[in-house]
This record gives sequence, C-alpha cells and structure tokens, in this order.
Amino acid sequence: MMIDSGSKNVIDEIFHPRSIAVIGARSNESLENDGWVSRLIAFGYTGTIYPINPKAAEIMGLKAYPSIRDVPGPVDLAIFNVPFRISDRIMTDCAAKGVKCAHVFTAGFSETGKPEGIRLQNEIERIARQAGVRVIGPNCMGLYYPQGGITFGRLLSNKPGTVAFVSQSGASASRVVAQGTERGIYFSKVVSYGNAIDLDGTDFIEYLSSDPETKVVTSYIEGVKDGRRYFKVIREGNRKKPVIVLKAGITEGGSRAASSHTASLAGAENIWDALFRQTGVIRVDDLEELLDVAMAFVYLRRPAGRRVGIVGRGGGLGVVATDMCEKAGLKVPEFHMETQKRLEQLIPESGTSARNPVEPDRGLAAWAVFYEEGLKAIDADPNIDFILTHLGIDIYGGFGSRLTQSLDEAISILLKLSKQLSKPLVIVLYAGGRAETINAVLQAQKRCLEAGLPVYPSVPSAAKAVSRFIGYHEFLDRIAGNLK
Amino acid sequence: MMIDSGSKNVIDEIFHPRSIAVIGARSNESLENDGWVSRLIAFGYTGTIYPINPKAAEIMGLKAYPSIRDVPGPVDLAIFNVPFRISDRIMTDCAAKGVKCAHVFTAGFSETGKPEGIRLQNEIERIARQAGVRVIGPNCMGLYYPQGGITFGRLLSNKPGTVAFVSQSGASASRVVAQGTERGIYFSKVVSYGNAIDLDGTDFIEYLSSDPETKVVTSYIEGVKDGRRYFKVIREGNRKKPVIVLKAGITEGGSRAASSHTASLAGAENIWDALFRQTGVIRVDDLEELLDVAMAFVYLRRPAGRRVGIVGRGGGLGVVATDMCEKAGLKVPEFHMETQKRLEQLIPESGTSARNPVEPDRGLAAWAVFYEEGLKAIDADPNIDFILTHLGIDIYGGFGSRLTQSLDEAISILLKLSKQLSKPLVIVLYAGGRAETINAVLQAQKRCLEAGLPVYPSVPSAAKAVSRFIGYHEFLDRIAGNLK
Repeated sequence: MMIDSGSKNVIDEIFHPRSIAVIGARSNESLENDGWVSRLIAFGYTGTIYPINPKAAEIMGLKAYPSIRDVPGPVDLAIFNVPFRISDRIMTDCAAKGVKCAHVFTAGFSETGKPEGIRLQNEIERIARQAGVRVIGPNCMGLYYPQGGITFGRLLSNKPGTVAFVSQSGASASRVVAQGTERGIYFSKVVSYGNAIDLDGTDFIEYLSSDPETKVVTSYIEGVKDGRRYFKVIREGNRKKPVIVLKAGITEGGSRAASSHTASLAGAENIWDALFRQTGVIRVDDLEELLDVAMAFVYLRRPAGRRVGIVGRGGGLGVVATDMCEKAGLKVPEFHMETQKRLEQLIPESGTSARNPVEPDRGLAAWAVFYEEGLKAIDADPNIDFILTHLGIDIYGGFGSRLTQSLDEAISILLKLSKQLSKPLVIVLYAGGRAETINAVLQAQKRCLEAGLPVYPSVPSAAKAVSRFIGYHEFLDRIAGNLK
Repeated sequence: MMIDSGSKNVIDEIFHPRSIAVIGARSNESLENDGWVSRLIAFGYTGTIYPINPKAAEIMGLKAYPSIRDVPGPVDLAIFNVPFRISDRIMTDCAAKGVKCAHVFTAGFSETGKPEGIRLQNEIERIARQAGVRVIGPNCMGLYYPQGGITFGRLLSNKPGTVAFVSQSGASASRVVAQGTERGIYFSKVVSYGNAIDLDGTDFIEYLSSDPETKVVTSYIEGVKDGRRYFKVIREGNRKKPVIVLKAGITEGGSRAASSHTASLAGAENIWDALFRQTGVIRVDDLEELLDVAMAFVYLRRPAGRRVGIVGRGGGLGVVATDMCEKAGLKVPEFHMETQKRLEQLIPESGTSARNPVEPDRGLAAWAVFYEEGLKAIDADPNIDFILTHLGIDIYGGFGSRLTQSLDEAISILLKLSKQLSKPLVIVLYAGGRAETINAVLQAQKRCLEAGLPVYPSVPSAAKAVSRFIGYHEFLDRIAGNLK
C-alpha cells in the first residue's frame, strides 16, 4: 500500500534538527533553574542552539537574539515558550525565517473552548500551512530523543532504548518516560503532540513503525483526525512491530475531559473496540499497563505456549496468583509426575508445596536453595512453557537486618540459574509499603533488569502483560496462516 | 433468626485465653530469635505462658515443662509447633489435660493429598471432638489480637484497630496485616484457620459480626464446609456491618491449588457469584483490593452520591483518571457554572483547567495555593458529592531538593482545608519507582492518615474502592426500603 512518505521523512528531519531556536528563552536560565535551553545543553545536544529573548544579550553562555528573524543561520526547530496571545506574531516570524518545524509548547488554544483561543489556533495553523512550517502542537511537550540530546524534562534519563511513545498528552509522556526508565524501559523516540494542528499521532506512528531505532511503538491517544488513515497505519505498523495503545476518553466524562484537553472528538467506545480487535493492536487501560506490556516486549523471549509454572509463596497467595494467571488467559497446569517427584525430594516436609504453584519453603533463606535445583526441574517439565517466580518481600520484610542479605543471595542464585534455563523467566517482586523493604526491592529489581530479566510489581500486572505479549505473537501466527 | 451462640462464646474465650501453652517451644528462643513464646512476650500478653519442651528447663525466663500434662494450671490455648507425625500424641495429651482450644500451626495433613497426612488429620479431629477440645487449623497461623497481646508475627504492629480479617490462608493473613498497618489500617482480630477440622470461616465471621471491637469484617476463603450456613451468616453479618470477601480458587487451576492448599472444595464460580450478589457482600479480587475497600470504611464518610470532583494533574492524566472513575461506576459531571467561574479566577491562564477534572497549575508549588481556595469552591458545588485529589509526585519528583518541601506545604494546606470541607475527601498519591519520591510520599501518606483522610496509591484503586463503599450503603438503603 501507498504510504505518505512525505511526512515520514519530515518527521525524521524533525528528530534530527541541526539547529534549535528557543523562542522565549528565560534570561535567568541556569543548570539549576530548569528551562528549554538548559535542558538541551544538559542532555548533550550537539547542534546549534539559538536563545530568543529581546531583553537578554546572552543566555547560558549562548548569544541571544531579539527575534528569530535576527538569527544568522537556518533554524530547523523552533520551540515556542511564549504567551499564547503573541503566538500568531511568533509564527509569522517563523514563516518569514523559513523555520522547518515549530514545536508550540504554549497552551491556551482550542482546548480552552474560548473564542480567543480558537481564533489564535486557527490563525497559527493558517500561517504555518501557508508558509510550509510543520507544527508539533500546540499545547504539548514536544520531543524526547536521548540519542539526539533532545528532551522535554532535564532530569529524565539520557539513556536511549528501543521503545517509542507517541502521546497526545504531555503529562502522560513525562510519566511514561520517568516511570519507564525507573523500571528499566528505555526509549528510542518520544513525542507529545497535543492539539495536533498539523502532525498528529497517525503521522508519528507511521514514522516509528519504520524507524530502525524503534522495536516497540506505544501510544496514548484521545482522538484522531482521520480515522480511516489511523486504522490503516496502526494495522500495518502492528504487523512490523508491536503497537500498544491507551485510548483515553472512552467514558462520557472522559470524553468531555478529552475535549477540553486537546479539543479531541473522542468517539464511541464500540468503534474503537472493533478497531483494535481488527488490527490486532494491543489495547491497555492505563499507563502502568502500557509499561507492563512494553516490559514483556523488551525483556521476554516468546514462550512456546501459555502454560506457566509458578514458583512463589504457596498457600493462599499461590491460589490467588493462580487465579490471576488463569483470569488473564494463562494456564497453570499440573506438573509432570517426574517434576513432582523431583520437587518432593527438594521439599521433603511438605507435599503440598511440590505442586504447581510450588512453594520452596517458608523462609526467604530457603529460596536460594530451591532456585539452585527446583528451577531446573520445572524448566525440564514438558507441561510448562515458562516460569513465573513471585517473591513476597513484603511478608519476609519484617525480619529486618537479614532481609537485604537473604534477598541478595536469592537474587544471585536466581540470576545464575536463569542463564541455564531453556524457558523464559518472569520475576515478580512485591514490595509492600515499608521504606526498607521498598529500597531492598528496588536494588533487587535493578540487578534482575541488568541481567535482562523482566520484573513486575505484582502477579496480576505480570500475568496480564505476558498474556497480551503471547497474544500478539499468536495474532501474527494467525495472519501468517491466513496468508499461506 | 437463631444463631449458634455456642461457638460464638467459645471463640470469644479463645481470643481471651488466661493461659497459653506453646508445645514445641524452641529451647534457643530469644527476642532476636523469633518464636511463639517470644512473640507473646514481645506483644505484651499478660496471661500465663507455658513453654513445653522435654529438653529444656527454662525458655525466655519461663519454666518449661516436658509435656502439657505436667503443666500445673489450666490451659486455655495450646499452640502446636511440632512435627505432624506426633500431632496425634500431642492432641491426646491436650485431651487428657482438658485444653480448651488447640491451635495446630503444624502442616502436612490433608492438604498434601497423601494417605499419612489424611490419616493423621482424621485422627486428631477424632481425638479433639471426643474430648471437646476446640481446634483452629491445622496448617494455619492462628490468632492476631493486638488488644490481647497475641500475634503470629512478632514484628507486626501492636496497635489495635477496627478491621477483622478471617483468613483460610496464613500468608494472606501476614500480608494483609503487614500491608494494612503500613497503609494505616489497624485490626481488631485476625485469624488464619487453615484446614478447619473444627472452627471454620463461617464460625469466625458469625462471631465477628457481633464483636463490638470490630466495625468491618474482611475475609479470605477458598471453600466452606456448610454452604447454607455460610450464606446465612454472611447475609446477616453484612446487614450489621460490611463484610468484604476475597474468594480464591475460582479458576480451574486456582481450584486445584486451593485443594492442595487447605483441602478445600472450591466450588463453581457462578454459584459464588450469585451468593455474593444475593447477600450484598462486597467481593474483591485480590488482597490489595480488600485493603482498598477497608480503607474506605475506616477513613471515609458516606458521600451523598456518586458524583466526584477530580482535582489533580489535568491533561491526559485527568482524562485517564476520569475514565477510571466512570468505569468504576462513579460519575464525573461538569461543574456548576458558578464553580467554573470561581476556578477561572483562580487559574486565569488556562480555561481548560477550570473544568472537572480540574488542574491547579503545572508545578507542585501551585497546589498549596489552589488547595487554599479551589477546594472550597468545589465543596460548595451542588453537582458534586465528594472530592478526589490526585498528586502525581512521580512527575514532579524530578525536581529534586524542593520536592519534599513543596509536597509538605501542599499537604499542610490540604489537611488544614480538609477540616473546612462539608464533603468527603479522597487522596491519591502516585509514588513512581524512585527511592526519594517513594520516601517523600510515605511521609505525606502518614500525615494524611493521621489526619483521618484515606490515601490510595492510584486513581483506579481509589475509584473502585469508593464505588464499592457507596454501593454497600446503597444496598442497605434498598433493604431498608424493601422492609418498609
């Protein structure tokens, strides 16, 4: 099918600007006092930065210009950090300068529902379109591209990764990048595009589906301009790499909120539901689920099937974990007889614990011992496709000083053993609400992630994400089958 | 209706034992080396403790006895901390001694599915029944009653509260008490009763429904012995005070796991579903939800209706929050025109933010200012029944050193204002995954709880819990209407 290669190439150029003008750069910016100029410097942007401010001669050691018209060289990207009332004049300046793309960070336009905001949005759209200035926004955070030294938040991680996030919402973009990197999920390219008077989510998803730096495309949308084109783009994109979408504004109140947020028409829930089912796109309900699914695509190999061997607190917690896995569409089968025999040798006292879900023993110290041998037995079981181990640190946490040490030992053995396993391994670390247990778990999580293992905060979050991950591969299989 | 007052009185006696024998007390117990005797001492149990151990003369400064038969005074409660193979002999000793109740902590019985375990369970059941010894267990943690100095975990909180938890699972009991107290939910009486050869969940729920120390009854069950009596007890109990139930073992795998956990027949999901709907009992899916609902009953006044005013990050996060509330059965209506006008005066720059959900401003510092005036305006709105405010500390968290201070200030104003509000207030504090933000949030949470305000970790957890809380009151209203 034909693809609008025009906007794809434009977007690639936008992510690689040779020069950036910050219009409305604050005269008192410093590395301590966050601003658009200092962010670019701190993130290591290597192109030319032009601070624009009629009242400053120099900002952050860079020569400042009264207007973008005064800038000597060409400007690829202009960031609008100005009051919305003068945005039309600023856009006229950009048009005169021949700016390639304007990122209008400024808010106060159509999303307010007020005549003045609507008029000004129409005006900047008209000026930009006439002059051929491409626009991101208005009312958005713009670009986060660690590889290129571009960011909308100075204290975000500058480590690049393979997950892209296309977000109509700026706060969602900030939350996803902040929480994602804390969970070991790093990003290729992120864009918050707001009211989308020019480039919209569809354009960015289309571009990222072909972007070699991106392996997973995630997205937050409220509404789209052209439903038919969106359908085509996510359908085709999802066949090249997973497309994960949070569709917001699906309830009556949410739809109204979306309208005052980005002036979007959110559309009927049943239409969206059909859209996602037909395209095989992975739908999630909130940003945490979006990151849960991304975690699986970044850290997990595809299991041969849906049958999970659960290693963790047995007893009631094991029963609930089993319910959660099966409700999410996984299967928790009985172990093969040989496995059960082997596990009974390892846990001689308690026959119950040798079944699926298996409970190593009642104390945290027993985990290291079990991981050494028990995981191998489950790994060899023909009834099992992958292993999920959940460690209830919140329960063992009461035992104070030994906790960190016992947890460290268990994780060391787990990481060593994981290399010998032929089947995928998923780790759940319950932290509870106590500061010392939380800190111990954050350390343990870091070690697991560095070893390339996925970590989840709860069994339901892991089960739902892994089930969707497997579902995506099953979807691709069905399509391949249909094409034969 | 007639109530089996026999077991109710017995259970009250069991929670108030004048003496406790620990059979199998470890000779090396100390305050550092956790055990059943040291737990009682550390928790301030004021009755007589008899350590039983044939190889020790004294344990924790208390005279030890070779057998329970050698104890001079009467024994109200005997804790079995012995290998399951000698449990029949120990039960015979207890019968001879005339022990009132045996808590059989020991595991290895019917739940193993092995002939030896089944035989021994039948045997101790026969001996106890013949001699009139009441039994909690086997295969369970027994009692946690902070008011009476009794606990199954030494490092659990000894602060009494008003929530009871009746749990077939020991690990669930530990998790609920540990996580509950960390969230400001304290307990009246908790029991983990395992295989239930004598006293079972129904008995305990019946007792707690009439217990003056208990205002909310929560419960984890896998199966019940007498479905008809269980139905009657939860139905009547739920009309006196809220009964919240997590039914585990509802999937095929979960049901099998329940059978190897407490030898329970978990029963068909549709029967349980009908049971809960008919009784109006509040059903939850996991232990976190159980605590979420308990939080509402402990900290929240009943709102006049389901219409919520949302104060928090607007933008995409506000849209998602709105969807989550409406999906959970709440309504997020438009503000009254007067409210909107007032909010527009408070947030002059951004028309969008003056609608429901309302966004104070883009930085954390602006929250304190908004709380001072904005909350009053929403409180006065006739379209609104209660207020939910969500603070995305995970997003503001990046701003380092000022975070704790800004958060402290916002919380101070919030707490001050909350006293002037006529409508209930629910607080959501997103913590994210960064150690410093988590610690700041834990502090803020503590202050809110101490001021009597409910705190949730996410909008969906708050929305679902508050919706169920309102639903319980609506159920009582319907019953009262039917009785007229």
